[in-house]
Amino acid sequence: MSSLSPQNWLLLKRVVRFGETDAAGVMHFHQIFRWCHEAWEESLEKYGLRASQVFPNDNEVGGTLEVFLPIVHCHADFRLPIKNGDQLSLKLMPTKIDLGSFELKVLFQRGDEDVAIGVLHHLAINSQTRKRCPLPEEINLWLEASSVQFGLRPL
Amino acid sequence: MSSLSPQNWLLLKRVVRFGETDAAGVMHFHQIFRWCHEAWEESLEKYGLRASQVFPNDNEVGGTLEVFLPIVHCHADFRLPIKNGDQLSLKLMPTKIDLGSFELKVLFQRGDEDVAIGVLHHLAINSQTRKRCPLPEEINLWLEASSVQFGLRPL
Amino acid sequence: MSSLSPQNWLLLKRVVRFGETDAAGVMHFHQIFRWCHEAWEESLEKYGLRASQVFPNDNEVGGTLEVFLPIVHCHADFRLPIKNGDQLSLKLMPTKIDLGSFELKVLFQRGDEDVAIGVLHHLAINSQTRKRCPLPEEINLWLEASSVQFGLRPL
Amino acid sequence: MSSLSPQNWLLLKRVVRFGETDAAGVMHFHQIFRWCHEAWEESLEKYGLRASQVFPNDNEVGGTLEVFLPIVHCHADFRLPIKNGDQLSLKLMPTKIDLGSFELKVLFQRGDEDVAIGVLHHLAINSQTRKRCPLPEEINLWLEASSVQFGLRPL
Repeated sequence: MSSLSPQNWLLLKRVVRFGETDAAGVMHFHQIFRWCHEAWEESLEKYGLRASQVFPNDNEVGGTLEVFLPIVHCHADFRLPIKNGDQLSLKLMPTKIDLGSFELKVLFQRGDEDVAIGVLHHLAINSQTRKRCPLPEEINLWLEASSVQFGLRPL
Repeated sequence: MSSLSPQNWLLLKRVVRFGETDAAGVMHFHQIFRWCHEAWEESLEKYGLRASQVFPNDNEVGGTLEVFLPIVHCHADFRLPIKNGDQLSLKLMPTKIDLGSFELKVLFQRGDEDVAIGVLHHLAINSQTRKRCPLPEEINLWLEASSVQFGLRPL
Repeated sequence: MSSLSPQNWLLLKRVVRFGETDAAGVMHFHQIFRWCHEAWEESLEKYGLRASQVFPNDNEVGGTLEVFLPIVHCHADFRLPIKNGDQLSLKLMPTKIDLGSFELKVLFQRGDEDVAIGVLHHLAINSQTRKRCPLPEEINLWLEASSVQFGLRPL
Repeated sequence: MSSLSPQNWLLLKRVVRFGETDAAGVMHFHQIFRWCHEAWEESLEKYGLRASQVFPNDNEVGGTLEVFLPIVHCHADFRLPIKNGDQLSLKLMPTKIDLGSFELKVLFQRGDEDVAIGVLHHLAINSQTRKRCPLPEEINLWLEASSVQFGLRPL
């Protein structure tokens, strides 16, 4: 894979749906955070991870999953109105911040236009003690694989 | 308390918010199910129950809470458009179906008009085995107290 | 296309996302209605319609779109718990009820298991007068094309 | 009213509901933005404005409402896990940025603990031209009345 072409798990698509609009006729702002989180989940999946390796579920709350990855900060900027039926391209740009946290930036584009950007900052905590801990190995692998293409990019 | 006047935990209020509308300018249909569930939670709270007695939470999934109350069926009818800023009155009508299930009907009114109705059908299951079990005592008390006023009503 | 194989716009996929679960560790019930509506939108899109032909948007509320298609009834049945990461298959079964309304049934399957079913009942109304009117031609075409495969099916 | 005691439209309450949690057993992060927006709406209402004076609705999209107030930026910080049933106090801190925009900061507290903070940045645009314009008079009045108490506060 060329370092010039982004990994396929970092380039996603999303179509805006009617229930995501409000009475002003455009996407209701907070949907972007759901989109960012779902993009993260889809990215992990395309990279090869199973949801049960990363997310607590029915059998694993307080159980076998050792690390939770809560969001401690997030933000978004909206540049152009986003409408029902818009076909958006998502560029995911994950960055490891330190041993126990990472940031995921998602750029939303419609054709050549940047329409919005969303950023999630995740922290690793031990699921029992709720204290900070290192990121799970699976997440580290995804972060490293994802950084290859961006190594020389002046972002 | 008179049997003619509904219990205060069965008469709630709700104002429709902008993010609950869609680009047709009216409430997006599935919000009604969130409203019904939140009305149920508010009703239990007003009746005197704590959320941790009824709902699994951070400390209790797979832990101390013995009974979960999943929804196995729900439906809604929409009679009139519901708009941003509408001040709705909610009438809750819970009915015990059998030892292990109950139904909650919620009538949404704007002034004297019936605008919508939503119905949730809950089943009691053991949180470990996932098999059917009797309703928790707290829910039975709420159901019984709630039925007093409706005892003679030809609903 | 064989009448035995469903049209491709009636067989969709969906992966359950983390934000769609609740503290009981499973899909929170009302998400199914969002899924049904989004499946409908995706189906129209795959069939060849543009969102702006069917849904009001920024430029068209009170404007050029003549017919709105509000939901007047919906219901769902839940048979098995649905979890984060589940890969669901959706079978869409639309039926024309009369000149001015149709029903969309969506069956959700995980492998060979039926996990849930959701039903939306849409009514055509004139966007100005809010009175009942015939379904838009585009919706009629989609309904007719969709019914071919189901003509002999004893559902 | 004392300048030391916040106006009543800037101190709100909210109880966390079950459907707002996820399978990690705590509030799913993006709910905070819905809470912020709904707090803003409730604040305007308590101050004395009607929804139809500020928000587009069924009759007014592309119609009589001259100014829309889209969000161009938002962010949130999460300090402590928020759980189902938590009774939160909300402190709203609106600030006029310039003639055509304002920021609303909402501090979420549980008892004496700060659990989260959310910030919405709104821009005034003409509903027809989509160009920037001055804030509506109603919003200016709310902003001015809201700033009295905070005039001397070193926030």
